[in-house]
Amino acid sequence: MDLTKLMKPRSMAVVGASEKEGFGGDVCRNILTYTKDLSRIYFVNPKRTTVFERQCFPSISDIPDEIDLLILCTPQKTILPLLEEGAKKGCGGAVIYASGYGETGTDEGRRNEKELLEKARELNIAVMGPNCAGYINYVDDIHAFAFVSEKRERKGNVGVISQSGQLCLSMMDSPSMRFSYNISAGNAKGVQMEDYMEFLVNDKDTKVISLYLEGVKNVKKFIDTLRKAAQMKKTVVVLKAGRSSKGQAIAASHTGSMSGTDASFEALLKKFGAIRADDLEELIAMSLLLSTIPKLPQRPGFASMNLSGGETAICADVGWLNGISYPDFAEETLRALKELLPDYATPNNPLDMTASLSYDADLYAQALTAVMDDPGVGMVLIGYTLLYEIADPAIHYMYEGIKKVIQEKGQSCKPIAVIPFAENTRNPEYQEKLLGIGVPILPPPLYAFRMLKKLADHIKPDHARGNYDIALPETAGKTSYALSEHESKLCLEAFGVPVAAERVVTSADEARDAAESMNGPLAMKIESADILHKSDVGGVILNVSDGSKAREAYIRIMENVKKNCPDARINGVLMAPMLKPGLEMILGVNNDPQFGPMVMVGLGGVFVELFRDAAVYPAPLGKEEALDMLRFLKAYRMLEGYRGGVRYDIDALCETLVSVGKFAAANKDTLKELDINPLFVYPEGEGVGVADSLIIKYMER
Amino acid sequence: MDLTKLMKPRSMAVVGASEKEGFGGDVCRNILTYTKDLSRIYFVNPKRTTVFERQCFPSISDIPDEIDLLILCTPQKTILPLLEEGAKKGCGGAVIYASGYGETGTDEGRRNEKELLEKARELNIAVMGPNCAGYINYVDDIHAFAFVSEKRERKGNVGVISQSGQLCLSMMDSPSMRFSYNISAGNAKGVQMEDYMEFLVNDKDTKVISLYLEGVKNVKKFIDTLRKAAQMKKTVVVLKAGRSSKGQAIAASHTGSMSGTDASFEALLKKFGAIRADDLEELIAMSLLLSTIPKLPQRPGFASMNLSGGETAICADVGWLNGISYPDFAEETLRALKELLPDYATPNNPLDMTASLSYDADLYAQALTAVMDDPGVGMVLIGYTLLYEIADPAIHYMYEGIKKVIQEKGQSCKPIAVIPFAENTRNPEYQEKLLGIGVPILPPPLYAFRMLKKLADHIKPDHARGNYDIALPETAGKTSYALSEHESKLCLEAFGVPVAAERVVTSADEARDAAESMNGPLAMKIESADILHKSDVGGVILNVSDGSKAREAYIRIMENVKKNCPDARINGVLMAPMLKPGLEMILGVNNDPQFGPMVMVGLGGVFVELFRDAAVYPAPLGKEEALDMLRFLKAYRMLEGYRGGVRYDIDALCETLVSVGKFAAANKDTLKELDINPLFVYPEGEGVGVADSLIIKYMER
Repeated sequence: MDLTKLMKPRSMAVVGASEKEGFGGDVCRNILTYTKDLSRIYFVNPKRTTVFERQCFPSISDIPDEIDLLILCTPQKTILPLLEEGAKKGCGGAVIYASGYGETGTDEGRRNEKELLEKARELNIAVMGPNCAGYINYVDDIHAFAFVSEKRERKGNVGVISQSGQLCLSMMDSPSMRFSYNISAGNAKGVQMEDYMEFLVNDKDTKVISLYLEGVKNVKKFIDTLRKAAQMKKTVVVLKAGRSSKGQAIAASHTGSMSGTDASFEALLKKFGAIRADDLEELIAMSLLLSTIPKLPQRPGFASMNLSGGETAICADVGWLNGISYPDFAEETLRALKELLPDYATPNNPLDMTASLSYDADLYAQALTAVMDDPGVGMVLIGYTLLYEIADPAIHYMYEGIKKVIQEKGQSCKPIAVIPFAENTRNPEYQEKLLGIGVPILPPPLYAFRMLKKLADHIKPDHARGNYDIALPETAGKTSYALSEHESKLCLEAFGVPVAAERVVTSADEARDAAESMNGPLAMKIESADILHKSDVGGVILNVSDGSKAREAYIRIMENVKKNCPDARINGVLMAPMLKPGLEMILGVNNDPQFGPMVMVGLGGVFVELFRDAAVYPAPLGKEEALDMLRFLKAYRMLEGYRGGVRYDIDALCETLVSVGKFAAANKDTLKELDINPLFVYPEGEGVGVADSLIIKYMER
Repeated sequence: MDLTKLMKPRSMAVVGASEKEGFGGDVCRNILTYTKDLSRIYFVNPKRTTVFERQCFPSISDIPDEIDLLILCTPQKTILPLLEEGAKKGCGGAVIYASGYGETGTDEGRRNEKELLEKARELNIAVMGPNCAGYINYVDDIHAFAFVSEKRERKGNVGVISQSGQLCLSMMDSPSMRFSYNISAGNAKGVQMEDYMEFLVNDKDTKVISLYLEGVKNVKKFIDTLRKAAQMKKTVVVLKAGRSSKGQAIAASHTGSMSGTDASFEALLKKFGAIRADDLEELIAMSLLLSTIPKLPQRPGFASMNLSGGETAICADVGWLNGISYPDFAEETLRALKELLPDYATPNNPLDMTASLSYDADLYAQALTAVMDDPGVGMVLIGYTLLYEIADPAIHYMYEGIKKVIQEKGQSCKPIAVIPFAENTRNPEYQEKLLGIGVPILPPPLYAFRMLKKLADHIKPDHARGNYDIALPETAGKTSYALSEHESKLCLEAFGVPVAAERVVTSADEARDAAESMNGPLAMKIESADILHKSDVGGVILNVSDGSKAREAYIRIMENVKKNCPDARINGVLMAPMLKPGLEMILGVNNDPQFGPMVMVGLGGVFVELFRDAAVYPAPLGKEEALDMLRFLKAYRMLEGYRGGVRYDIDALCETLVSVGKFAAANKDTLKELDINPLFVYPEGEGVGVADSLIIKYMER
């Protein structure tokens, strides 16, 4: 969809222009307050000849110009004729504030929406909304926004798209935020969220894309956009409702978005290096951080510099709580700092600079330079509350010191951010000054360090490790059926998952012969896709050691099953070597109806659920991506050899994840779920063992 | 220590009064800006006759009045003679800003400090500092503070004590904070932190005590104060440095505080219902919340009301992340809300009120009343960003609606707080108005819900369940020694821990006889306090089933041990019944040198460490406190019977915790540590089994 006339119009008509409060008045006020070149902006209102002393046309048709964009401030019932009138003037975009569409939840509203979308398609008009607050294009000075804001400079490089008008307003109100575009997309029924995303990814003036989403509609375009953003090194920051079940219900009811699971959504973001924000404040602060620092840190190590011991301790503690890495300073750094600091101070990271450095910009600059030059440091965090009511001259010396270092270092300057220790007190003059030299002020520590950990995870050179494939299902399955254990294992084996040689026997004699030809003790299990809990029905006998016992076991299993599951379809009895025990893991696939197959791995037993220690990642995945999944687990330390324990075969586990991912991707349209539970992981070099497996498929369509 | 003359002086002398910048000038400016009654405040400076047009005395002796408090703005070397001069005028308190004491880390500084403290003791003068920023007593209008602040009303009910001047300033700068006292205690070498705490707990004007601590010095007084605060229902909010190892090092180096472990400190706070803040912003916001709401919530259920779907989803999601309980609304609440809301809206908790209720104070009040009247709701959270630059009339209607409900409800009004979704944009007029009717504005969601979870945990009627005992060690132990397994078990058994009947045998024949008289298979283990890892030296043989095998086992164990540990002192061989396996837990005691014995419990195996799932609580403890410990564990769901699994004997486990706590308290001066690992917990009604135990004691002193 071409959004040029909607988002970058050369001319526009405000229909329903007015001096009153409300959409018409607010749009006019915004335009007159902000827009420099009014020459091709036309006000339209049949009841007025002027609005704010500017000529007002009785209708669109009366305007002596072509019109790219209609800004419709009039009620729902007027919209369709206005679109038709606009189309005759060459209109290719329309912003529609009116409500009375799908959001009402009524039949009438849905009918109105359908008619609107059909008409827009017919006339080839890109519709923003309906029921939206409009947008501002700061790059080209276009103001199609329906809430009045105080005048100040807001032009910058953050492109915002929000499905909530209220959240959009809050972002605009945040004093440090600077935007390329601010789009309050409302119902997003004409032009969809993914279309705006695509537009911003391709927009040269947008550096950071900042999203509030209630759900994804066009999954393919969503993924294509994330992929392109990753390739172009533009960062996408996403706040999405629906992490909790209550949040999901609200997001769904609010815009009727169909929604995959939140875990799948998060896995997708992870693959493409997009950053998830947990609330609006974090979305704002993360966008501000990324938009302000001249470049991303080159490595994930942080240095923390503070003026007091209390503040230094907070940075140490809250950093630690959030998994922040503070590398120890190098010898040279320590030597330089010792010369600058008073005798009693011990240089360390985080660093207590002591008050003695607070009142001298040159000394401050020298200390900052020493810390920045440390080879382990990727970014410098300056802990400082920009006090407002309390006279504190340190703020001046600190600012001058930072500025000096930034000027001296030029291109080689590492990114710097300021972390205040209290919010809601902030010296606005210095906030602007710091912003002006590329130093963002973050929220207080609990937000700041959480964000910085996400930044540290984000700066990996390529999250997907070159694998940009995603296996989106073409169709959604409905009814499903299970494969038997043996069938499941054969499917996996075909994709490279190591499965021990097994046999299915259909008579007691065959069981005896098989036992005699197979080595070692065997597990015998009823082989039937109809019986999921084999032990519960007497369908499993373990440690069968010879032919005659195998014969007896066969008979007993068949008797038990016939008694307990008379209707089950029986393939026979599966005879498998008893696996030696290893570290029990669970490996699975859940094929998200919206986002496709997601591979899951975690420690076995109850621990995945009890401690929520599982990693989820989209299929297909490469070996390095598999290793990243494992590293994400708390249980990874067990795999590595915990407390002098054995080191497990991480390589074989990664290969198994890759194989499972391949299988899942190849079966994206038919697979519902897959479980390998348990998967035994053996000591390094000894591989893995699939003890049991279950595949559930959709009926072919 | 009597702090009356220091904290509530009737007269005071500012020595070093001046018009310049610096301590002397800033103190004078503060006094002249803020103090109403200057009649008994005297400026002293031999070089001046007036300061800011006010009479200035050449010396303390020249003042024609008794002096309660000296405010000493002069350098370190002048201090001792001034104290002597003041003492002759009846002085009982002194604020000392000068540095040059222990904080320098030099011998000279330490000597100066020692002399100062000796002199103060000799003269019976309570010294604040040295190297402090002083204090303000808002109740009695006393300004002994050395940083200039903009004039505004700050009088309220939060008593602040901070070991960091910078953090103290940040709290004062926070626009909503209202204080009874604000004490920047500096080195806190004269009057200690615990003395100030005691003062504030006993102060009738202080409702909330807000602390920044680097460490505890007077543990007994610290605990006595926490106990008294709990009994008086005053809330203590504590920010303490040293959660991480880096933070501990910083806190220790900064004020030389001796420090128990952070886990012990946190356990103490938990026992007495004090609230721990994780950073300064949380300390401020929690203090503001507690100081502003007219009463604490009566139950831990929250209702969330918001004006947009996006904001409602954030409250649902971030609430869920933080373990907030949003009870489902009762039928009656839903009925009332359905009448108020538009047709398409679904009432729910969190509630999306939709924009339709935002512009009518009466409707708003009705919705708020309906929600507040819900029996499951203890507190109402109003999600709303107080936009500043964006014109939003909703703020007015919301405020009027809230005010109406508060007036109508009177005493029966449940507490209300506002949660904004973005920080650093706040309408100051409405912030003050809301504060004025008892409605605090919290920080954005990641802080707010974390705090509210702590509030919900805090409102339990009695955290200690009536047990206010703490077992503080009188002396700190140095060298330590281990008890053998059998000795350890006997110690525990004496305090009621169930230990199976065991015997120690000293010959092969005795082993045979014992095996024949004891029932079932036995575990035989070398019995020696010198051998901690018995299996590693061949000192353990399990499943010994009869007398002759016991004989052989005895001989083999002795041979192994003599070969592998020739120097170990051997008591014999311990013969114990083989315990049936159960759920493996770890139970232990660590006797914190500062805070006394702490009982620890967690799931066995590697999970305590890997998933940090352990509960720590001071000894002695009651059975309900023990149950609270278990409930704190993620693993509690396993004890309860996870996913249809067996329910374990939680009662017996609690009794074991109580018994271990009794043992630890009784041995507070001699116990170093205790481990029961593993403790088998059996299905409900079947008790617990101590499989192995180790006690390490200090040498008697």
